[in-house]
Amino acid sequence: MKKNAISPTRAENYAEWYQQVVDAAELAENSPVRGCMVIKPWGHALWENMQRELDDMFKETGHRNAYFPLLIPKSLLEKEAEHVDGFAKECAVVTHHRLIHAADGSLIPDPAAELEEPLIIRPTSETIVGVMFAKWIQSYRDLPLLINQWANVVRWEMRTRLFLRTSEFLWQEGHTAHETESEAREEATRMLDIYTRFVEDYLAIPVIRGVKSDSERFPGAIETYAIEAMMGDCKALQAGTSHFLGQNFAKAAGIEFQGRERGTRQFAWTTSWGTSTRLIGALIMVHGDDDGIVLPPRIAPAQVVILPIHRAEDARAVVDEYVDVVASRLRSLRFSDRRVRVEIDRRESRGGQKQWAWIKKGVPIRLEIGLRDKESDSVTLSRRDRESSEKMSVSLVDLPETIMSLLDQIQRGCFERARQFRSENTRTISHKSDFEDFFRPQVEQQTDARGGFALAAWCGDKACESWAKEALNVTIRCLPFDQSHEDAGSGCVVCGKPRSTVALFAKNY
Amino acid sequence: MKKNAISPTRAENYAEWYQQVVDAAELAENSPVRGCMVIKPWGHALWENMQRELDDMFKETGHRNAYFPLLIPKSLLEKEAEHVDGFAKECAVVTHHRLIHAADGSLIPDPAAELEEPLIIRPTSETIVGVMFAKWIQSYRDLPLLINQWANVVRWEMRTRLFLRTSEFLWQEGHTAHETESEAREEATRMLDIYTRFVEDYLAIPVIRGVKSDSERFPGAIETYAIEAMMGDCKALQAGTSHFLGQNFAKAAGIEFQGRERGTRQFAWTTSWGTSTRLIGALIMVHGDDDGIVLPPRIAPAQVVILPIHRAEDARAVVDEYVDVVASRLRSLRFSDRRVRVEIDRRESRGGQKQWAWIKKGVPIRLEIGLRDKESDSVTLSRRDRESSEKMSVSLVDLPETIMSLLDQIQRGCFERARQFRSENTRTISHKSDFEDFFRPQVEQQTDARGGFALAAWCGDKACESWAKEALNVTIRCLPFDQSHEDAGSGCVVCGKPRSTVALFAKNY
Repeated sequence: MKKNAISPTRAENYAEWYQQVVDAAELAENSPVRGCMVIKPWGHALWENMQRELDDMFKETGHRNAYFPLLIPKSLLEKEAEHVDGFAKECAVVTHHRLIHAADGSLIPDPAAELEEPLIIRPTSETIVGVMFAKWIQSYRDLPLLINQWANVVRWEMRTRLFLRTSEFLWQEGHTAHETESEAREEATRMLDIYTRFVEDYLAIPVIRGVKSDSERFPGAIETYAIEAMMGDCKALQAGTSHFLGQNFAKAAGIEFQGRERGTRQFAWTTSWGTSTRLIGALIMVHGDDDGIVLPPRIAPAQVVILPIHRAEDARAVVDEYVDVVASRLRSLRFSDRRVRVEIDRRESRGGQKQWAWIKKGVPIRLEIGLRDKESDSVTLSRRDRESSEKMSVSLVDLPETIMSLLDQIQRGCFERARQFRSENTRTISHKSDFEDFFRPQVEQQTDARGGFALAAWCGDKACESWAKEALNVTIRCLPFDQSHEDAGSGCVVCGKPRSTVALFAKNY
Repeated sequence: MKKNAISPTRAENYAEWYQQVVDAAELAENSPVRGCMVIKPWGHALWENMQRELDDMFKETGHRNAYFPLLIPKSLLEKEAEHVDGFAKECAVVTHHRLIHAADGSLIPDPAAELEEPLIIRPTSETIVGVMFAKWIQSYRDLPLLINQWANVVRWEMRTRLFLRTSEFLWQEGHTAHETESEAREEATRMLDIYTRFVEDYLAIPVIRGVKSDSERFPGAIETYAIEAMMGDCKALQAGTSHFLGQNFAKAAGIEFQGRERGTRQFAWTTSWGTSTRLIGALIMVHGDDDGIVLPPRIAPAQVVILPIHRAEDARAVVDEYVDVVASRLRSLRFSDRRVRVEIDRRESRGGQKQWAWIKKGVPIRLEIGLRDKESDSVTLSRRDRESSEKMSVSLVDLPETIMSLLDQIQRGCFERARQFRSENTRTISHKSDFEDFFRPQVEQQTDARGGFALAAWCGDKACESWAKEALNVTIRCLPFDQSHEDAGSGCVVCGKPRSTVALFAKNY
């Protein structure tokens, strides 16, 4: 029987499998601070790669980075009523600016240093950005204003899961202001396009693009666009979101400018958009298997790991020298417009143990190099997306071409497998009983459980949406842009009233 | 009479000049959040360049990035007594995790959501990093552990100045653990070396390296090393700091491991080191002139700015096309191992206004390109480190070589001017009366005021250090590693008792 590196397997207990993969790949762990995680070097390197690719895409489309304060005065948050209601119940409140020793010697917040107005740790920055935009934007000539921020945010969570739901997380938040409504709508769509391209082409995760229903919309937005991905347990995860904010925040913050026509004053149209370290959770759940995480090459911190094998002490120097030759040859290659990332693991531990460490960490290609390989001018290659025992010998001459072609093949393979899986677990459903059957008997934490993505007609009524949530714990993930699902029926899958739209229903993270 | 872009000039009012430069270069501005700044795109781009260069240097020396929680439980901070005393009086305290509507409709911290234990927004992360290190380090094989974090920190400040002193700032903090004392000391020195190299070679700021006196040491450290730079008003600014923490934090956090000899348990030796957005303040004050900031090319967000000049509408397309040719030719060049950064300013405003915008922003080289330039296959070049009226025509053929040579020349010129200035304002002093004369009559905010760096003998007694602080507002910036200052005399410059060391005295930021 095949033994797996991760226990339990996905089929045995998906939630626990996830936790074990995060642990085994050394991606992150819980901290002594309630709800806050520590992102470990391997997880952080993944995030850095995501940051670099996204940042380049943002800059190519004219955005520039800035940094806004971590702390937001309560009164600022209150300016947009819907917005504050959305975040007030889960925010960290700073009330004092000093600790002093109490009579018993312990430290307490100094009553003499209580803030006149509490400060909120940003759950998102629309309000504080709005105040600054109001200062910076005086004329239509100052528009569009296209800003992005890489930052940490805090949204208090009672039940947390590494990467997926933590009180503090890292993200980027774009904030833009435009002269006209159509320009702002275009921007919101453009950023969703960028997220789509990044998530599909780099993370190798296929997504469904659409607009959120009223109840899932960002607090204060007119329209929220999102990309939704299917995880390995058939649940949905929102992989990126972009909001058309209309003039709501502009009016709240007074982002008003001199229009093109003399003497006219008008409010700006704004957008905001974000992705976060949640994407690492998505990577794990889309590509991971029972041996750990599987990293698409374009995002992997190391695309190739070299494991020198020292059997005879007197051959050590020879092997090491050969390893350096191989590494530098590979590092001179470029894949996806970056230098190929090669790691050499010279640690003194058993070969098998080292192999498995890198399997669990998801590195696409492993090269074992011992004296025999050196003597035959070759390397022994294995792939993360094949059985660990499946090895092939590649001559040094062929190595660059082989590596380039394999990285490309593995990248496309990741995407294709994910697309195949999603397709197998997506149904177009037109009857309520089928809808219930699809979701209801699902035994949680079994990959072979039923459920998945259901495309079904919806009348647009909140009551039907609530019914799905309450009866089946299923929500509308989005109203897909692609509405070409004729077989979804003409009547709402819940109440039978005329269809207003096709909705994507699923359980979700 | 020459008119300057910045008013007041440095000579008229240095502090106000600084503020005006920050404003004119669009680097940052105050926010409605007390003590917190907004870093604007041009300032942030500078910080990004600093991050990239430093990050590469950290990684080349084996460090990896990670991320630790923003919030630190009060009890954790209390574990190292000196440390908590150093930060308790200036920290932001989170006491609640929810806001609710009060009877009058306003939002208040929900009394039902008061935290059992207050959380402190990290002023620095030794304590939380220590807890994780204690989990990660079990054996000598796990050492050294070399971690860096890019993060925001909060230290409550009552009187703030953009970049120099703000309640929230951005920084990197390195945290490492080692098997032996000597390895940890070596690491602390290595990182000071890296800071020296970065600040001197990239920011073009000459520094003095040394160790801090007891009173200036980091709370909880055994030894604090620092690099000190002279600003344009002759005051000192600490440009980077590296701490040898001994086993203090290891004992407080229980970072204990299985030693090389069987059955032995020992505490790790740790270090920490940091640089921050303060460096942007240093850049301004070292290189800035009465026309704005002057950026050393290796760190400038744009090294070359191209200003298309459109005199005749019908020639617009021709000029624009030529501009693109010039830009792409320059962008294919590499300076200091990066692609040359070229910006094209196509905004519709008067040529003079655009010129001055980029002068104030400190871009090293400006190219004006109009129809005449196009027709003669040349460009009109001016340099930030020369009079704005001084222009030269450079043929397109010679342009790449000219640009490369000028960037190099400007970079070295920045450093040389700063070194010259520092040298003119540094004295070796052996008599108390000279020491008082050097510092006392200084009229604040005049660049021609007396004062500067004084190298003088010190007995090592805190009382003499305090005298200098109280009488002259002068502190010991460091005890320079270079102690070859024979003319500093053999007796303490304050009390005359035998010299223990030569100290660098200065007023400081």
